[in-house]
Amino acid sequence: MENSWFSLMKEWYVSLGAGEWATFALSITVAAVAFAAAALLYSWVKKQPLENKKIEEICGYIAKGSSVFLNREYGVLAKFAGVAALIIALFLPAPIWTQGRGFWLENIVMALAYLCGTAFSAFAGKIGIAVATKANGRTAAAAQKGIGPAFLCGFRGGAVMGMAVVGASLLGVALVFWLTGDASALLGFSFGASSLALFAKAGGGIFTKTADVAADLTGKVELGIPEDDPRNPAVIADNVGDNVGDVAGMGADLFDSNVASMAAALVMGSLLGGKNVVTVFVYAALGLLASIIGVATARMGKRSNPTSALNYSTYVTTALFAALTAGANLLFGFSWRIWGASTVGLLVGTVIGIASDYFTDDRRMPVRKTAEASETGPAFTILSGVSYAFLSTLPSLVGIGVSALASYYICAPMGEGYPLFGIAMSAVGMLSIVGMIISNDAYGPIVDNAHGLAEMGGLGEDTLEITDSLDSAGNTVKAVTKGFAIGAAGLTVIALLGAFLAEVNEKAAAMGLGIHIDGFDVMNPNVFFGMLVGAAVPAVFSAMLMLGVNRNAMRMVDEIRRQFKEIIGLREGAAQPEYDKCIDIATSGAIRELIPAGLMTIVVTVLVGVIGGVESIGGFLTGNIVSGLLLALFMSNAGGLWDNSKKYVEAGHNGGKGSPAHKAAVIGDTVGDPFKDTAGPALNTQITVVSLVSSLLSGLFLTLSIFS
Amino acid sequence: MENSWFSLMKEWYVSLGAGEWATFALSITVAAVAFAAAALLYSWVKKQPLENKKIEEICGYIAKGSSVFLNREYGVLAKFAGVAALIIALFLPAPIWTQGRGFWLENIVMALAYLCGTAFSAFAGKIGIAVATKANGRTAAAAQKGIGPAFLCGFRGGAVMGMAVVGASLLGVALVFWLTGDASALLGFSFGASSLALFAKAGGGIFTKTADVAADLTGKVELGIPEDDPRNPAVIADNVGDNVGDVAGMGADLFDSNVASMAAALVMGSLLGGKNVVTVFVYAALGLLASIIGVATARMGKRSNPTSALNYSTYVTTALFAALTAGANLLFGFSWRIWGASTVGLLVGTVIGIASDYFTDDRRMPVRKTAEASETGPAFTILSGVSYAFLSTLPSLVGIGVSALASYYICAPMGEGYPLFGIAMSAVGMLSIVGMIISNDAYGPIVDNAHGLAEMGGLGEDTLEITDSLDSAGNTVKAVTKGFAIGAAGLTVIALLGAFLAEVNEKAAAMGLGIHIDGFDVMNPNVFFGMLVGAAVPAVFSAMLMLGVNRNAMRMVDEIRRQFKEIIGLREGAAQPEYDKCIDIATSGAIRELIPAGLMTIVVTVLVGVIGGVESIGGFLTGNIVSGLLLALFMSNAGGLWDNSKKYVEAGHNGGKGSPAHKAAVIGDTVGDPFKDTAGPALNTQITVVSLVSSLLSGLFLTLSIFS
Repeated sequence: MENSWFSLMKEWYVSLGAGEWATFALSITVAAVAFAAAALLYSWVKKQPLENKKIEEICGYIAKGSSVFLNREYGVLAKFAGVAALIIALFLPAPIWTQGRGFWLENIVMALAYLCGTAFSAFAGKIGIAVATKANGRTAAAAQKGIGPAFLCGFRGGAVMGMAVVGASLLGVALVFWLTGDASALLGFSFGASSLALFAKAGGGIFTKTADVAADLTGKVELGIPEDDPRNPAVIADNVGDNVGDVAGMGADLFDSNVASMAAALVMGSLLGGKNVVTVFVYAALGLLASIIGVATARMGKRSNPTSALNYSTYVTTALFAALTAGANLLFGFSWRIWGASTVGLLVGTVIGIASDYFTDDRRMPVRKTAEASETGPAFTILSGVSYAFLSTLPSLVGIGVSALASYYICAPMGEGYPLFGIAMSAVGMLSIVGMIISNDAYGPIVDNAHGLAEMGGLGEDTLEITDSLDSAGNTVKAVTKGFAIGAAGLTVIALLGAFLAEVNEKAAAMGLGIHIDGFDVMNPNVFFGMLVGAAVPAVFSAMLMLGVNRNAMRMVDEIRRQFKEIIGLREGAAQPEYDKCIDIATSGAIRELIPAGLMTIVVTVLVGVIGGVESIGGFLTGNIVSGLLLALFMSNAGGLWDNSKKYVEAGHNGGKGSPAHKAAVIGDTVGDPFKDTAGPALNTQITVVSLVSSLLSGLFLTLSIFS
Repeated sequence: MENSWFSLMKEWYVSLGAGEWATFALSITVAAVAFAAAALLYSWVKKQPLENKKIEEICGYIAKGSSVFLNREYGVLAKFAGVAALIIALFLPAPIWTQGRGFWLENIVMALAYLCGTAFSAFAGKIGIAVATKANGRTAAAAQKGIGPAFLCGFRGGAVMGMAVVGASLLGVALVFWLTGDASALLGFSFGASSLALFAKAGGGIFTKTADVAADLTGKVELGIPEDDPRNPAVIADNVGDNVGDVAGMGADLFDSNVASMAAALVMGSLLGGKNVVTVFVYAALGLLASIIGVATARMGKRSNPTSALNYSTYVTTALFAALTAGANLLFGFSWRIWGASTVGLLVGTVIGIASDYFTDDRRMPVRKTAEASETGPAFTILSGVSYAFLSTLPSLVGIGVSALASYYICAPMGEGYPLFGIAMSAVGMLSIVGMIISNDAYGPIVDNAHGLAEMGGLGEDTLEITDSLDSAGNTVKAVTKGFAIGAAGLTVIALLGAFLAEVNEKAAAMGLGIHIDGFDVMNPNVFFGMLVGAAVPAVFSAMLMLGVNRNAMRMVDEIRRQFKEIIGLREGAAQPEYDKCIDIATSGAIRELIPAGLMTIVVTVLVGVIGGVESIGGFLTGNIVSGLLLALFMSNAGGLWDNSKKYVEAGHNGGKGSPAHKAAVIGDTVGDPFKDTAGPALNTQITVVSLVSSLLSGLFLTLSIFS
C-alpha cells in the first residue's frame, strides 16, 4: 500500500522544514516540562502534612462541593459544546454541502478543534481545583510552623494551576496548528476555550457571589455569627465559590486570552510567511520557560513579606523573558522589530498592573480617601469609589492605546500586514508571563481558604495572623493580575479584529464576491450603528449577571433561614447544617442565570451581522471592545478599592471596626463584590467570545445581510 | 462714494436669492414671535398674585442668590471667553499673519461669532432665571386656589425659558449665517454656546448638588429638622441650586445642542447647495412655531393630571411639526427624503423618551424591584439600580444607531454628501420640538421650589398636596426630557463628526497639503489610540465633577455647623441664618471645581491631536461619543430610578417612611443625585465641546502632529 498511515505521517514530517519541525518539537517539549513541573509541585503539595481532623473534614466538603459544581457545569457545557460542534461541522468554515469531496474534512477538523479547546481548558481547570482544595488546608497547617513554609505551600499550589494552564494552551495550539497546517482551525480551538471560559468565569462568578452575599446577609447581619462560622449552611459554598470563581474561572479566562492572542498572531503570521510562525511559538515557549524558572525560584526570605516575594518572582520572570527572547533573536535571526513589539506589550502590561495597584492599594490616596468619605455615610463611600474607579480607567486605556500605536509603528517598516502582526505580538508579549500571573492569582483563593480553615479549625491567634497577612498579599496581587488580564484581553481583541478582517477578505475572495474590505470607517453608518449596539452589550451583560447574583442569593437566603428554623440544635452548634443544599442552589442558580446572558451576546452579534453585514460587525466589535474595557476596568477597580477600604477601616482607621465608617465601608464592599468577582472579569471573556463568533460567522454575514 | 454702507447693504441684499431672503426673514420673524410670546408669558406670570409676605421674602432671597451665582459665573466665563476669543482671532480659521489683506476679517468674524454664542445663551439663561424665581412663589400661591391655576403658572413660567432659548438660537444662527455668508463661522457661534453650556451645566450641577447634599447631611441627618426648614443656612442655596442647575443649566445645554445640530446641518447643507440651507431654516422655524402653539394650548382639564397635560402638549407639538413640515414640503418642493430623515429623528427621540420613562417610572418594574431590593439593605439598592441603569442604555443606543442608519440610507440615493446631511437633519428633527422640551423641563424646578415655598410659608396640607403632585409630574417628565437631550446630543455629534471631516478636507485642500481623508478606519492605530483615550475622557470628567461636589459639600457642612454653633437662637428659630455665606461657598466652589474638569477635556483633545493628528482626533471623537452616551444614559437613568424608588417607598410601599427599606432608598437617592444632576447631563456638553474644539483646531492638527 502506497498510502499507508506510516507513509502519510512520513510525508507530513518531510513537508515540515527543519526549523518548523524543531519549533513543533520545542513547543511540545516545553509544554511537557510545564506538565512535569505541575506534577512535581502537585505531589509536593500533597506530601505536606495535614493533621487537624476538623480541617481535613472541612477540606473534604470544599473539595467535594467544588467538584460537584465543576461536574454540573461541565455537564451543561458538554451539551452546549455538542450542539456548537455540530453547527460548526455543518456550516464552518463553509456549509458542508458546498465543500468538495474530501474538503468536508475541514469542517470536521474545525469542530474537533473546537471540542479540543473546551477539553484542554476544562482539564487545566480540573487540575487547578484539585490542587487548590488540597493546598488550602495544608497552607493553614503550615502556617503553624511560620509564614515562610505557609507561603511556599500556597504559592506552589497556585503554581500547579499556572503550569497546567499554560502547558495545555501551548500544547493545544501547537497540535492544532501543526497537525492541521491551517491557522484558521485555531479560531475553532480558541472559540472552544472561550466557550469554556464564559461558563467558568461567569458561572463561577455568579456561584461565588451568591454564596458570599447569602452567607454575609444571614450570618453576619441576621444571626450575628462570625464570617467563617461552620454553623452557617452557606459557609462551605462560600469557600467552594473562591475556588470555582477565582481558581477555575480566572484560569479559564487567561487560558482563553493566551490561546486567542496566539491564534490571532498565527493567523496573521502564517499569511505573512517567513519566520513569523516560528517566532510566535518560540516566544510563547520561552515565556512559559521563564515562568517555570520564576516559579521554581520563588521563596520568601527571612526579612521579606509575601507581597514582595510574589512581585519579585514576577519581575524575575519578566526580565528572563526579555533576555531569553533577545538571545533567541541573536541565535535564530528573528526580527528585532517583532521583539520590540512584544517587549512594548510586556512593559505596558506592567504599567497597567501598577496603575491598578495604585487605585486599590491601601497605602495610596484613593483607598484612604474612600475610607475617609465613609465617615460621612455609605452614599459617600459609593460616590468616592465610583469616582476613583472612573479615574482609574484612564492609565490603562491610554496604555493599551499606546501599546497598539507603538507596536504598529515599530513593525510598519517591515511591509504590508506587519503592523497588525506587531499588535498581535504585543499581546503575545503581554501574555508571555501568564504562567506566573496565574500562579500568583490562584495563590489568592488558596490562602483565603486557608485563613477560613484556620479559623474554623481553631489554630490560634498566631496562625491566624500569618494566614491573614498571606491573604492581604493575595488581595493586592489580585488587583494587579486583574488589570493585567484586562489589558491583555484588550490587545488580543484588537489583534482579533485584524484576524476578523483577514478572515472576511479571505472568504470574500474564496466565494468570488468581488468585495475587498480595507477597514471599518466610523463614518459608515453601518459601522456606527454596530458600534453603538456593541457598546451597550457589555453593560447589558454585566446587568444580567448582577441581577442573576441578586436573585440567586435571595434563594439561598431563604434556604438558610429554613435550615435555622427546621434543624434543631443548629444555632447552638449541636447539629450540622446541610451544606450540600446551599451548594446545590448556588450551582443550579449559577447555570440558570448564566445561560441567558451568554445567549444574549451571541444572538445580538448574529442580529447585528444580519442587519448591517460585516461592516456593522466591525463596528460592533469596536464598540464592544471600547465599552467592555471601560466597564471591566471600572468595575474591577471599584470592587478592589472598596474591599481594601473596608480592610483599611477594619485595621483601626477612621473609627475602626464597628464604627459608622465601618458600616458604610462594608456596604461599599458588598456592592463591589459582584462588580469585581462577577461582572467585571467576565467582560474579558464576553469580548473574546463575541470576536470569535464574528470571525467564525463572517461567511454568513458576507452573504446574508439586509443593509449592505 | 461708490462703496457707501448703504450701497454695500443693497449689494448684500441683492446677492441673496428671493427664496434665501424669504428664509432669512422667516427665521427672524419666527424668532421675534417667540420673543413676543416669552414677553407675554413673562408679564402674565408677573401679574399673578403673591400675597404671603413670608413667601415673598424667601423668593427674594432665592432670586438674589440665583443672580449672585449667575453674575459670578458669567464674570468668570467672560474672562475665559475673552481669552478664547483672542486665541480664535489670532489663529482661526487660519493664523492671522497667513491671511491675505482683508481676509484677517475672517478671524475677527469667527471671534465675534464665538462671543455672540456665549452672549445669546447667557441672555436666555438670565431670562429663564428671572421668570423662574418669580413663578415659583406665584405657583405656590396659585396652588391655594387649585391644581389647574397652579399648573398653568408653573408651566407658563417654564415656557418663558423655552421660548427665549429657542428664539435666541434661531435668531443667532440666522444672523451669523446670513450676515457672514459662511457656514463655518457657525462653528464659532456653536463653540461659544458650548463654552457657556459647559459652565452653566457643570457649574450649576456642582452648585445644586453641593447645596442639596450639605443641606440634607446637616439638616435631616445631624439636626433632625425637615427638608425645607428655613432655619437651615443651606436651604436657600438648595433652592437656588434648582434654578441655576435645572433652569439655566438645562436651557444652556439644549441651546447648545440645538445650535450645534443646526450648525452641522448648515455646514454640510451649504456645501451641497440647492434648497438644503433653506430647508434647515424652514424646519427649524416650523419646529419653533409648533412649540409656540403647543405652549399656548397647554391647559389642565378638569379630570386630567399634570403629567398627562405635559405629555399631551408634547404630542400636539410633535404632530404639528410633522404636519407643518409636510405642508412646507408640498409648498416649496423640498425633498421628501430629507423630511423622512427628520421625521425618523423625531420618532426615535420619542422612543428614547419612552425608554427612559420605563426605567424611571414608579409604575414600572425597575423602580419597584429596586424598592424591593432596598428591604435587603442599601448595597442591594445600589446593585439593583446600577443593573437596571446598565440595561436602560440599550434601547437608547440602539435607537440612536437606528436613526443614524435609517436617515443615512433614506438620503443616500440623493447623491454624495447627502447621507451625512440626512443624519444631521435627523438631529434637527429630533431637536425641532426643543422649545416644548425646555418648557417642560423648566417647569420641574419651578414647581419643586413652589413645594418648598408652600412648606416654608405654611400654606397648609391641601396646598402642599397640590404642589407635591405637580412636583411628581415634574420628576417623571424630567427623566423623559433628559433621555431626549442625550439622544439629540448623540445624533448631533455624529453630524459634527461629519462636519469635522468636511472641515479637515476643506482645510487640507486650502493649505495644498494634498491629503484627502475619506473616513476614520478603526484598523488604523492612530484612530484606535484616539478612540481608547476618547472613551476614558467622559469617565474622568464625571469623576472630577463628582469629587468636586464631595469636596464642596464638605466645606458647606463645616459652615453650617459653624453657624449653628455661633449664631445664638438659630436652632430655636429666633435668629436668622446667614444664607448668603452658603450661597457664596456653593458659588466659588462650583467655579473652582469646574475649571480643571473643563480644561482637562480641552488639553487632552489637543494632546491627542498633536500626537496622532486628525485621524487620532476622529477616533477620539468616536470613543468620546460612544462612552459619553453610555455613561450619560447610565448615570441619568440610575439617578432618576433611585429618586423615584425613594419616593415609591415614601408613598408607603416596602415598609414606608422610616423603615430600613426607606433608609436604604435614601442612600440610593443620595448616590443618584450627583449622577443625574451633575455628571450625567454635563456629559452632553462635554461631548459637544470636544467635537467643536476639534473642528476648530483641525488646521493645527493637520500641520502639527507626531505620528501621522
